[in-house]
Amino acid sequence: MNTLTQALSEFLDTNPVGVLATTTPSRKPRQSLVYFARDGERLLISTLDDRLKAQDVRRSGWASLCVMAHESPFPSASFSGPAEIITENIGPPTAKIMQRIAQSPDPPEPMSDEALAEAGRVVLTITVERVTAVNYIDGGRTPQA
Amino acid sequence: MNTLTQALSEFLDTNPVGVLATTTPSRKPRQSLVYFARDGERLLISTLDDRLKAQDVRRSGWASLCVMAHESPFPSASFSGPAEIITENIGPPTAKIMQRIAQSPDPPEPMSDEALAEAGRVVLTITVERVTAVNYIDGGRTPQA
Repeated sequence: MNTLTQALSEFLDTNPVGVLATTTPSRKPRQSLVYFARDGERLLISTLDDRLKAQDVRRSGWASLCVMAHESPFPSASFSGPAEIITENIGPPTAKIMQRIAQSPDPPEPMSDEALAEAGRVVLTITVERVTAVNYIDGGRTPQA
Repeated sequence: MNTLTQALSEFLDTNPVGVLATTTPSRKPRQSLVYFARDGERLLISTLDDRLKAQDVRRSGWASLCVMAHESPFPSASFSGPAEIITENIGPPTAKIMQRIAQSPDPPEPMSDEALAEAGRVVLTITVERVTAVNYIDGGRTPQA
């Protein structure tokens, strides 16, 4: 796949927060602000296994992340695709997300899957299939109202 | 209704952008960054009648807006409730939203409903019924991961 252009990849790599949207059992959108990291065409979010967002993803298999920069005119884009909750080999991605939260030059030492499981930590992954509502990124696209 | 505390109202009045989420016909979340204004317990977004977000709201009658501040730790909250597309008396709310976009001290002269209709402009309203995922606002609430 090659959904993410270089400009979009750079945008994701320099802006660490986004708004995650999942679908509730009554088919309404559920939103929350999250930190994320990018791994190729996948977006990774650290969350807790018992969170409603994790349950939504387990049920629906889909999620959307709208990422924005934080100065006017607020460049932004929405990334969506198949989503899942993973519990294996999540030490390194969790460390990468923690690094973005702490704004530190290096990631912390990755925890083991066992230690993360004990803390209830899982990783929510979105494999980017659609990029929509792109504003002020990747030259030439126009704002959407 | 009294869903919005004073702290939440002030937060909405000082942060002009949010991520709107609506539900697509295939029940997936659709997100885009928008400017909004508050009118009591209602959130108002100016959009175009032919936008997919307007069609989603006409079909589903519900929307969510996640509003954030733009510095770490990124205070944020999600506001959702019954939503509709209105086309009457939308001059003043449209002017208020334009004022927030332009960051000007006063709103521009309101346009007439006829002029806005000609431009395809409508207002999407959300009557806030639920406030969720509140982070770093309204003291004492804890971050959600």
